[in-house]
Parts: sequence; C-alpha cells; structure tokens
Amino acid sequence: MLSLVTHLHAFVKEVALTETEWWKAIEILTQAGYKCSDKRQEFILFSDTLGVSMVVDLLSHRKPEGATESTVFGPFHRLGAPEMPPGANIASLDKSGMPTLVRGRVLDLEGRPIAGALLDVWQAQTSGLYDSQDPSLDGLHMRGKFRSDDKGRYLVRTVRPVHYPIPSDGPVGAMLAATARHPWRPAHIHFVVSAEGYEPVTTHLFDSADPYLESDAVFAVKDSLICDFVRHERAEGHARALGIAPPYLTADFDFVLKPAAEGAARDPLEGQKRLAALGAAA
Amino acid sequence: MLSLVTHLHAFVKEVALTETEWWKAIEILTQAGYKCSDKRQEFILFSDTLGVSMVVDLLSHRKPEGATESTVFGPFHRLGAPEMPPGANIASLDKSGMPTLVRGRVLDLEGRPIAGALLDVWQAQTSGLYDSQDPSLDGLHMRGKFRSDDKGRYLVRTVRPVHYPIPSDGPVGAMLAATARHPWRPAHIHFVVSAEGYEPVTTHLFDSADPYLESDAVFAVKDSLICDFVRHERAEGHARALGIAPPYLTADFDFVLKPAAEGAARDPLEGQKRLAALGAAA
Repeated sequence: MLSLVTHLHAFVKEVALTETEWWKAIEILTQAGYKCSDKRQEFILFSDTLGVSMVVDLLSHRKPEGATESTVFGPFHRLGAPEMPPGANIASLDKSGMPTLVRGRVLDLEGRPIAGALLDVWQAQTSGLYDSQDPSLDGLHMRGKFRSDDKGRYLVRTVRPVHYPIPSDGPVGAMLAATARHPWRPAHIHFVVSAEGYEPVTTHLFDSADPYLESDAVFAVKDSLICDFVRHERAEGHARALGIAPPYLTADFDFVLKPAAEGAARDPLEGQKRLAALGAAA
Repeated sequence: MLSLVTHLHAFVKEVALTETEWWKAIEILTQAGYKCSDKRQEFILFSDTLGVSMVVDLLSHRKPEGATESTVFGPFHRLGAPEMPPGANIASLDKSGMPTLVRGRVLDLEGRPIAGALLDVWQAQTSGLYDSQDPSLDGLHMRGKFRSDDKGRYLVRTVRPVHYPIPSDGPVGAMLAATARHPWRPAHIHFVVSAEGYEPVTTHLFDSADPYLESDAVFAVKDSLICDFVRHERAEGHARALGIAPPYLTADFDFVLKPAAEGAARDPLEGQKRLAALGAAA
C-alpha cells in the first residue's frame, strides 16, 4: 500500500493532475466497472493494454531454459468449457475458417511425456468475436478442455485463428483512440496447460504469418510462442482419420512444464472463478 | 499516459506483484465498479482514502491569502437539492440532532459582500448516514441550496453534524480494515459556494469539538475550515425569529471567494453531473 500510494501521488504531482482530469479518471474507472460482467472484463483489458499484465507475467514466470513461456490471460476466458476427446472440433459452428489441427505433446523439462495433462483452450471465431461477444450465440463456442494421452500427446481441431481488435466500445477503446494506438491483436489460440506436480502455464500460440506480431495491442507476443500454421492440400494422418477435407492447416507445438514449486498446488483459474462469481452476482 | 504507465510499472516491479495479487487487484476494481450507482461512488472513496483527492486539491487550489480553502468533494453529493429561503431547515426529518444555525457572509478578497452567491449544502444525518445511505428515506434530505442576500449574508438551519464512518461494506472498507485504519470522518458540513465572476470553492466546515480532526479517514481537514459550534441556552436573534427552542448552536463562518481565472466560468458540478448520468444509465 505504501508503494501504491507513493506512486499514485507521484503520478498526480508529476502531471499536475487537474480537477477536470481527476473527474475524468473517476468517470473512466466507473465506466470500466459498469462494463464488467460475467462476459466482459474491462479492468483486465486496461491492465493488458497498459502493459501491466506483461510486467506481472515477466516477474512471475522466470522459467528455466526450455519450459514453455507464459503470456497474458486476457479477458475472454470462460469457465465451464466441456472436456473433449482428442481431435474434437471446438469450432463446430465456424463454417468459414480454414480447418486447423493443433497438435503436439506435453513434456517435462527432460522431454518426458506428461500423461493426463489438462489443456484448457479458447479462441476467437473467424468473425473476430469470442462467443461472449457474439450476440448470435447463446452458449460456449471455440472452447474446450483436452487431456494429453499416455504419450503426452494432444490434438485439438479448430479453425485458423484470426487477428481481431480488442473491444473498443468502452473506456479502453477510448484510451487507445486518444493515444493513437490500434486495437489489434495478432492471431492466437489461448491455452492454460496444467498437470499434477507441475506449474501450470497460461499462454498463447501465435500464427507466424500474422502482420500484428510486432504491434500486439496488449504486448503479449514472445518469440518462443510463435508457431507456423502449415497448409496441406491432401488429407493425411490425423486429418484423414478425422475426415477433414483439404485444404487444411497443422500447427505443431510441444508444451513443456516445469515442476511445481514446493507446497503449491495452484489452481490457475482461481482468480477467474472469483471474478465470474462476482459478475454473476452483480 | 506515459507518466501513468511508468508509475504503474514501477509500482508492480517495486512490490514484485504476484499473479495472485494482480487477480485480487482486478477483483477489487471490479467490486468497486459494481458498488457504484447514482447513490454510491466507490472510486471517489478510494481516491479520498488514498489521499489522492487531497493531492489534486492542493495542486488545483493555491489560494491567495484570505480566500476560503477547498477540500474533498466526497462521494455523497446529489444533484437536485431544492433552493431554499434563508433560514430554511435542511434537517426537517432529523428529530434527534441539536438545532444548529450556520451563518455568515460570502465575501470577495477585499471583504466586500457578494450578493446572489449560491451555497450548495449537504450533510450526514445524526444517524451518521447520508440520505442516499438510509433505506428508510426515499427522497433528498439534509441538502439544500441557499443564496446570499444583498449584504452577502447566508443562513442555513440544520442539526449539529456528527462524525461518521465512511461506507465499509465495499472494497474501500476492506482496504481500511486490512491496513488497520479507522473509517471515521470528523463532523462536517459540505459546501460548494459559487458566484458569477468568482472561482467556486468546494469545501467543508468542521466542528472544532470533534475527536477525529487529527485522523480524518480522507485527510480532508484544514485548520482554516475548523469552526466553533457555540451552544446557546436562550433563543435570540435568528433563533428567536425562526422559532427554534433552546438549547441550540450557532456556527459563524464567512466564505471568501477569489476572482475566476480569465475565461473560465467553470461549473463545479460538471464532473458530478456526468457521473450521475452514468449511474442512472447503468
């Protein structure tokens, strides 16, 4: 609190904040609060767009060489996504996207497979909207939970992720406009990968072909998370087995988890669960 | 924005903010947002209790010698209080408080009366609750607007103000409890005094007998705003004319306004009006 108050006061003094600006700040925080619901998190969006989330991430996850790097959680996770069998399609309602298989293994630092790891996956639709932003959708879409098999393998069927603008109809959008920043995020798929005895990782896979990799509105890109989405003109292997008609894409990525810190069986979604309960009660 | 982001990041690094603390911060901001309505302003309460409001006040109002000092606006102002004649009772429903006359003049820096100045007055009830916090009340109470007469005189009838705890059923209350701070504000009456051609002043009158003058939860006390509430055992003057039965109190205070800065006919309630519109729409 001492540090928070010291920096708050120092900021106010440094810019010689006027009463009009103070009222505007109160208004912006209040607008952000009114925007929040069980489907919208404007304060996470502020934290993300002001780079705060990535500073917290960098401080929290000093990973040993080889472990998968983390990035922002973002405001679009929803609880309650169904657990699905390997190869299940999280994009069943998305008819316009290019069919895509994301696959690989969950490994420990020595490269040994981790069986039974949980992969919580979410992604925007080809329209650029998450299900929660899409008025035509009622339930969950583009979300699923997958388990690694006894060889550590996972297989997710989806569509190619797209770049999309973060929501700009609230105070975060006004801030971006006022500061001449674009709202775009490079195409990505969200993952929280967890397994007993390991530290969970909250991360994205980014599409290496995306034009916004260098200017992500939320500063979340890390080189190690950029992945090639490879185009195939003939159905082979998994695609053939799943009846996917070409052309389609594959993205191969192995998640590497480090051992959990002693004593800590941390639920990576604990904060999200508390927020969702708040939103539902409001 | 550069200063804000720099201080935000510096704070996060200085305390090595954990992900758990980050989630808690998001939760606190969200709870504060959900608390806000047309009757409650948790973000102003945070600004007040963290001393931010008083830093803004100190930066904004470097008053020439003799002008009435300003202090926090607070979260309890409401629009729409009726304009009342001199001597009208803003505490008509408060039967347990000691009758009190607040009176004096509105003057310019040379001590000349300002006629037609508007005094927007609000105060907590003897219960310690503002009307907006009191479930037994529907409308406005302990609020009124008064005009100075051609000699600059004003006269407000009320009851003795009480010290009261700021609302502690939200995240600000949790913050105070967690930091072992008491929630009490010394007894005071709120004023916004404005007149054409002068800079409006947002201020309080504090009761000099109050035990919390040295430890106001929102740091708003200034020596020049402390006023004696004098007890009378016999009805005289204004009290006799208004039919007030003794014992009663009088508090004498002159408001001194400085000339408006060139060009600026500022509405001191502009920010509050915008917030109220937000609250009503939410």
